[in-house]
Amino acid sequence: MAVINENFSKLPGSYLFSTIAKKVASYKESNPDADIIRLGIGDVTKPLVPAVTNALHLAVDEMGKEETFRGYAPDLGYSFLREAIAENDFRMRGCDISSDEIFVSDGAKSDSADIQELFGLDARIAVCDPVYPVYLDSNVMAGRCGEYDKESGKWDRVIYMPCIEDNGFVPSLPKEEADIIYLCFPNNPTGMALKKEELQVFVDHANKTGAVIIFDAAYEAYITQEGVPHSIYECDGAKTCAIELRSFSKNAGFTGLRLGYSVVPKELNRMGNSLHDMWARRHGTKFNGAPYIVQRAGEAVYSKEGKDQIKEQIKGYKENAKVIREGLKNAGYTVYGGVDSPYIWLKTPGMSSWDFFDMMLDKMNIVGTPGGGFGPSGEGYFRLTAFGSHENCLKAMERVAKNS
Amino acid sequence: MAVINENFSKLPGSYLFSTIAKKVASYKESNPDADIIRLGIGDVTKPLVPAVTNALHLAVDEMGKEETFRGYAPDLGYSFLREAIAENDFRMRGCDISSDEIFVSDGAKSDSADIQELFGLDARIAVCDPVYPVYLDSNVMAGRCGEYDKESGKWDRVIYMPCIEDNGFVPSLPKEEADIIYLCFPNNPTGMALKKEELQVFVDHANKTGAVIIFDAAYEAYITQEGVPHSIYECDGAKTCAIELRSFSKNAGFTGLRLGYSVVPKELNRMGNSLHDMWARRHGTKFNGAPYIVQRAGEAVYSKEGKDQIKEQIKGYKENAKVIREGLKNAGYTVYGGVDSPYIWLKTPGMSSWDFFDMMLDKMNIVGTPGGGFGPSGEGYFRLTAFGSHENCLKAMERVAKNS
Repeated sequence: MAVINENFSKLPGSYLFSTIAKKVASYKESNPDADIIRLGIGDVTKPLVPAVTNALHLAVDEMGKEETFRGYAPDLGYSFLREAIAENDFRMRGCDISSDEIFVSDGAKSDSADIQELFGLDARIAVCDPVYPVYLDSNVMAGRCGEYDKESGKWDRVIYMPCIEDNGFVPSLPKEEADIIYLCFPNNPTGMALKKEELQVFVDHANKTGAVIIFDAAYEAYITQEGVPHSIYECDGAKTCAIELRSFSKNAGFTGLRLGYSVVPKELNRMGNSLHDMWARRHGTKFNGAPYIVQRAGEAVYSKEGKDQIKEQIKGYKENAKVIREGLKNAGYTVYGGVDSPYIWLKTPGMSSWDFFDMMLDKMNIVGTPGGGFGPSGEGYFRLTAFGSHENCLKAMERVAKNS
Repeated sequence: MAVINENFSKLPGSYLFSTIAKKVASYKESNPDADIIRLGIGDVTKPLVPAVTNALHLAVDEMGKEETFRGYAPDLGYSFLREAIAENDFRMRGCDISSDEIFVSDGAKSDSADIQELFGLDARIAVCDPVYPVYLDSNVMAGRCGEYDKESGKWDRVIYMPCIEDNGFVPSLPKEEADIIYLCFPNNPTGMALKKEELQVFVDHANKTGAVIIFDAAYEAYITQEGVPHSIYECDGAKTCAIELRSFSKNAGFTGLRLGYSVVPKELNRMGNSLHDMWARRHGTKFNGAPYIVQRAGEAVYSKEGKDQIKEQIKGYKENAKVIREGLKNAGYTVYGGVDSPYIWLKTPGMSSWDFFDMMLDKMNIVGTPGGGFGPSGEGYFRLTAFGSHENCLKAMERVAKNS
C-alpha cells in the first residue's frame, strides 16, 4: 500500500482563494443577475501593454521559423532577461546584484512555495500574522509546521510575528529562534510597508543568528513614499542572509502570462553550503525554464516604451487604491494600506471577517478577502485590492457609501 | 543557523544534461570551428506549426485588449484545453477519462519532479535502470532514496528494475515491495516500448499490492507498432492505481513553450485519501497555472489543421530515427529503440559510455548522451535522439560511417 504524505490532511479547509471562488460561484448561481465586483484576489484587469504584446508577437514569429526557433530555455533563464533584471531592478538602485544571481521562474507563487525545499525538515519558520497563505501551506505540506490548533488558528511549530494596529503593522523580531523568516513588504495582505531602518533590524538579526530571510517584494512597484526599500539588498549585509522573490504579475500585469524571479546571492551560505548552488540544482532538476516568448515579454518590460507604458498602468491602479481608501474612510471605516501597495486593509465594524465577507457579497455584491483567511491576527480585518477597473472601483465605493 | 536540506549534497555530480552542456561548451571553446551536431538532449528543432503560432498570435491580441484580457488561469487549467485533451488523447482511444481528471502544467519535467510530494517520506520507489534522472533526483532531494553507493551507482533504498538486452528491455516487477513505481514507455532512454499485456502485468501488480504507478507517456506520439499502448488507461484497472504524465514537448514541439499535463483519476485512493484531491490541492497551493496563450496553443494542437501539421512534423522526426538506426547498423553497431520512439540506444563497442561520449565529440563532433548517466545498467550504452534536423542526421551518419 502506497505511503501517502499525511501532512496534506493537516491543512485546514481548502486554499483560501479556492474557497472564495467557490462561495462566489455559488452566490452567482443563486443570483444570476447580480452585478458582482471582484476586489478579492490580487488579479490585474488591465490588458498587457503594447511593448509587451509586440515583443510576444515577434517572439511567436521567431518560434515559427526554423532559423530562429528556440527549444528548451537555459534552466535559470535567458541571459538577455537576467541581465535586464539585474541592471534595472538592482544596479540602477545601487544594489550590487549580478545577472547570475537571478533565477527566472514561472512566477512568485511557485518560488514562494518551492524555496522551502532548500531547508531541512526540522527548520523552524517565522511568518507575519496575517500572512500570504502559500508560505505557510507549502511548509505544512513539507511537514515543518507541526500540528494545527483550531482554537487559536495557529501551527505549533510556527513562530508568528503579529502585524496589528498596535505595532503599526510592523513585525517584531521572532520571539524564538527561527531558521527561515518570511517577510513580504509592501505587505500582502495589510498593504503596509516597512521603512529601510525597520527592515535593517531583520537583516542584522538574521546575520547574527544565521537565519535566512525570504523577502517577497512582489509589490515594490506600488511604493510611493521615500525611505521604503524596493529591495532588501538596499540594506547593509542582506547578501549574506536574504533571498528576494519578485513578480512580473503586479508591476506589468503578467498574472496570466506567468513570470517571476528569485535572487539568491552567491555570498549566501549556510552549514558550508551555497544556497545559490542548491537553488540552481533545484531549478535544473525540477523546472525547465519559463517560455521563451514570455521571457521576451519580460525583457520588453524594461525597454524605454515598456517602462513608460507600465508606469501609466500602475498609476491607474494607484488611483484605484486612492478611490477605495477614501471611499471607505468617508463611509466611516478605519483603513490601512493602499499608499505603497495595491491592497487596502480595513477594520470590519463589529463583525467577524467571514461575516463581513458574506455581508459585502450579499448586500453590495462586492468580493473581498476576509482577513481571518490570512491568519488569526487578520481576524477583524478585510482586504480589498485596487486591481479592478477604475469604473468598478468607483461603483463599489458608491455601494459602500449607500450601505453605511 | 538555518538548517538546510542535506539531501541535496547526496546527489552525485550535477544534473546529467548540465554536465553534458558544460563539456560541450568547453570543447567548443577549444575548437571554435568545430561543426558540432547535437543529438544529445531530447530537444526538438522544428519550428512551431502554423496552427499553433496562429493560436498564439490570436491569444496575444486578446491579452492586449481590456475586454478579452485574462489574468490568473484556473489552477488546474482552462476547461477548453482539459476538454480537448480528455476527448482526443483518451476518449477517442477508448479510455474513460474525464476533463476534471486532467491537470494542466508547465511541462512533464515539473510534473515528474513534483508528483512525489503526494507520498510519505518513507515511501519506497522503484525505477527502471537506466532511467530519466528526474524521477530519482527529485526523490533524493526529498530524502526518500537513502545513501548513494559510488561503487554500484545505486541508492540503497531504491528498487531497481533493470532494462537490459537480456530481458529485451522489458522490466520485471519490483523485487521488493514498492510504494511508487515509475514507468516511462516508450522508454527514455532505451527507446523501447512495452506491449499492452506487458504493461497490464504492472497494473495488476499495483492493484494487488496498493503501489501507485507513475506512467510517463511523453513519447506516445512516436508509437508505430500495433499492440503498444498509448496510455496506461488502455489497461484494465489502471484507474485505481496509475497516474499518467504527458507532454506537448515531443508531440508538438513545445520544449520552448512549456506545456504538459497529468492525469489523476478520481478512483485513485490510498490510505483513505483521494490522490486526485491531494494533487488538486498541490496545484492550487504551489502553482498558478500555465500561461493563457500557451494553453490556447495547446488547444490548437487538437484542431484539424493542428493535427495534420503535427503528424507531418513527427513523421520527419521518425524518418530521422530511421536514418540514425540504419546508419549505425550499417556501421556495425548493435542498435535498439527508434521504432516507437525518437531515441536510439546503441551499444558502445568495448568502451565506457563516457569514453564513447568523448570519442564521439572529439572524432565526429557529435553530441549524444552516455548511457551510464541514466543509471548503472545504462553503462555500455549510448543514446542518440532523432530531434536534430534531417540534414544533420544524415551528416552525422556520414561521419559515423567514415569513422567505423
